[in-house]
Amino acid sequence: MTSKGVSDIECRAGHVLFEQGQVGDRAYIVRKGLLEVSRKVRGRKIVFGTVGPGEIVGEMALIDDQPRMATVTALDDCDLVAVERAHFRARIDATDKTTRHLLHKFIHLLRAMADELGEEITKIK
Amino acid sequence: MTSKGVSDIECRAGHVLFEQGQVGDRAYIVRKGLLEVSRKVRGRKIVFGTVGPGEIVGEMALIDDQPRMATVTALDDCDLVAVERAHFRARIDATDKTTRHLLHKFIHLLRAMADELGEEITKIK
Repeated sequence: MTSKGVSDIECRAGHVLFEQGQVGDRAYIVRKGLLEVSRKVRGRKIVFGTVGPGEIVGEMALIDDQPRMATVTALDDCDLVAVERAHFRARIDATDKTTRHLLHKFIHLLRAMADELGEEITKIK
Repeated sequence: MTSKGVSDIECRAGHVLFEQGQVGDRAYIVRKGLLEVSRKVRGRKIVFGTVGPGEIVGEMALIDDQPRMATVTALDDCDLVAVERAHFRARIDATDKTTRHLLHKFIHLLRAMADELGEEITKIK
């Protein structure tokens, strides 16, 4: 099913949905299955968590136009709804200025904290 | 000046605007001055950053009804605009469901990352 910038997709366990550093062109809503969110810092893989049914992943890069902050890998066979960049952005751009400011602020803080956390975890004390 | 849940306030350098763990009743827009955002983890103060003119602080607890995640202290004499909880929430509640979901998700991740970062910084490796 494809309509208005939204399409159903399936992926197999082990499939890399997107990789840290890539340009983001889609966000994904999880219908079925579990995906792992991880980053590589100084060659070490750090798992930040998982996303499952009802959750959205990959939206940050669509909001702030920065590269993907993490790699997302399917842990199971997954059913996803892919939302195209323009379709997603139209919704965000329609919200009021204060809310958009907050979304940008939170993403900025999340990226900064993910960097710091990566540094701390891989630091030799 | 006070109108519709918004009021101008001044605070002196050193004043603690709010403390980690408190119930949040207001958000603040910074007009003048700099404020420090910090947390206490295992008795150690961790500075997360500063907020300055044009920035908003204290809004997370108003969105997710959880206690203040950090302590905010004025570093200079500051001019702020205090926004009452109900006034702030009315704006958030008026945004679409997807955007509200994202705001909640980002705050949830920020709180979790702040906890993890605190643990990592104070960990003896």
